[in-house]
Amino acid sequence: MALPGRVKIVEVGPRDGLQNEAQVIPAAVKVALIDRLSAAGLPVVESGSFVSPKWVPQMADTAQVLAAISKRPGTAYPVLVPNLKGLEVALAAGVEEIAVFGAASESFSQRNINCSIAESLERFRPVAETARGAGIRVRGYVSCVLGCPYEGEIAPEAVAAVSQALFAMGCYEVSLGDTIGVGTPGKAKAMLRAVASDIPMDRLAVHFHDTYGQALANIYAALEEGVSVVDSSVAGLGGCPYAKGASGNVATEDVVYMLNGLGIETGIDIDALVETAFFISDALGRPPASKVARAIAGKKAS
Amino acid sequence: MALPGRVKIVEVGPRDGLQNEAQVIPAAVKVALIDRLSAAGLPVVESGSFVSPKWVPQMADTAQVLAAISKRPGTAYPVLVPNLKGLEVALAAGVEEIAVFGAASESFSQRNINCSIAESLERFRPVAETARGAGIRVRGYVSCVLGCPYEGEIAPEAVAAVSQALFAMGCYEVSLGDTIGVGTPGKAKAMLRAVASDIPMDRLAVHFHDTYGQALANIYAALEEGVSVVDSSVAGLGGCPYAKGASGNVATEDVVYMLNGLGIETGIDIDALVETAFFISDALGRPPASKVARAIAGKKAS
Repeated sequence: MALPGRVKIVEVGPRDGLQNEAQVIPAAVKVALIDRLSAAGLPVVESGSFVSPKWVPQMADTAQVLAAISKRPGTAYPVLVPNLKGLEVALAAGVEEIAVFGAASESFSQRNINCSIAESLERFRPVAETARGAGIRVRGYVSCVLGCPYEGEIAPEAVAAVSQALFAMGCYEVSLGDTIGVGTPGKAKAMLRAVASDIPMDRLAVHFHDTYGQALANIYAALEEGVSVVDSSVAGLGGCPYAKGASGNVATEDVVYMLNGLGIETGIDIDALVETAFFISDALGRPPASKVARAIAGKKAS
Repeated sequence: MALPGRVKIVEVGPRDGLQNEAQVIPAAVKVALIDRLSAAGLPVVESGSFVSPKWVPQMADTAQVLAAISKRPGTAYPVLVPNLKGLEVALAAGVEEIAVFGAASESFSQRNINCSIAESLERFRPVAETARGAGIRVRGYVSCVLGCPYEGEIAPEAVAAVSQALFAMGCYEVSLGDTIGVGTPGKAKAMLRAVASDIPMDRLAVHFHDTYGQALANIYAALEEGVSVVDSSVAGLGGCPYAKGASGNVATEDVVYMLNGLGIETGIDIDALVETAFFISDALGRPPASKVARAIAGKKAS
């Protein structure tokens, strides 16, 4: 199987990462983080969300952050939007891309967004329609694609069904998230094949968590299946809400290191990326969670 | 490509791991570690080395450790032996398997064992002959198979040449070590194919370091090539002497988690293995370096 020649990295650190940090980060630090990421060549930098600050106080300043960043031509700055109210705020903020988030697990959908999978899709449909009518691109997230903290294993068919529904309502890309990081390469491949029976592979992204150390192996397996869009988080920002002290999002620099070694282009400057990992880790007062950042720092210190 | 149905894990923590720890561990702790590993189902537990204690003080008590462990029928307890003098001590200690260690990089060979690759092979030949004459199995290690801290990239042909020499002198298995952890899956596959042109794939083992987070992706790629022997270190013991604070050996529990997910048998009880990771990490006064151990501990705490 030929691997893709180019991979698009979707950087989720400023949103999915920081939203799961206990500390609330000042807007100025978020702005600097986002600007460093775009300058390092990240083509997509998820920059915030318009979710109620009651639920996600870490993202309450998203409009302020979006107004202050230096937008680079060609870089996308999507934000998460849960409903029409959130979309209104996003439109007012001049957002050009939004993301909606569903789940492949009923229990997780109920506990995470307080409704069934079917109800969530009904909620997203007018959001996607209105957004697309306003010329806004819509991305879809599916969580728990390889396991659920409440239900355990999730059938590939359940992932395929919700992914297909999001694609059918106009999501240009569906990101498949292993929210608790339990997946392994064979299961990742089986899940991808099930989803790709309904959706072209080049419309699918993988979003692996490194909780059990499996993320890069899973990404490599996904590349073998033809996936060419990978979500990741600089410095491995985020952690895992389901296992205290454990890793969450795979670190962008670890992914880029592997892709570089495989000869796959990303357009990303890994040195600038590692500097950014140290920038935000310093702001959080701890070392980066990525092996590449630690190895490069350790090599310099040796 | 069909993955192997069964993988043999070669546990190197008590030797390759502890030898690279700054702390010298009491013999009783080493004995308890080795006995816990064999009880957890590890089929091979590398248990020490008969190298001069001037060079490796951490292994000075190997004979004492070997005399005190509870040997399980069917478990192998190999030790490292650099020369005939070391072999004599190993024979006196009743060792049934030894390992010799060469390098694919001239500069690394000079700095690590103070001789050229060719000289090291001449030194190993009588060791292997004498050992085999005494009914002792001999394993060969090759370091720097995907990169050298002094030379950078290493040609697959150089790896194939030294591997072939070790195999020809009677090593029943050759372990291919990415000593500095710089390899990525495509390069790992190319290297394996070069080596397997001379040696049957079932005589090859992979020994990946996780310094840049690539070990599991590389192991998965190696499984796809037909490799069925994997070296690893419980709790990721060892660290990386070439990058301070960075990871070294891939953690056994992270490997076993992936193999379990792939439906590949190992005969290892992962819960007992994780308990062992905590046992030795507690003895070292720090948390395990493995993601699986941290995730399982974090899940219990959440």
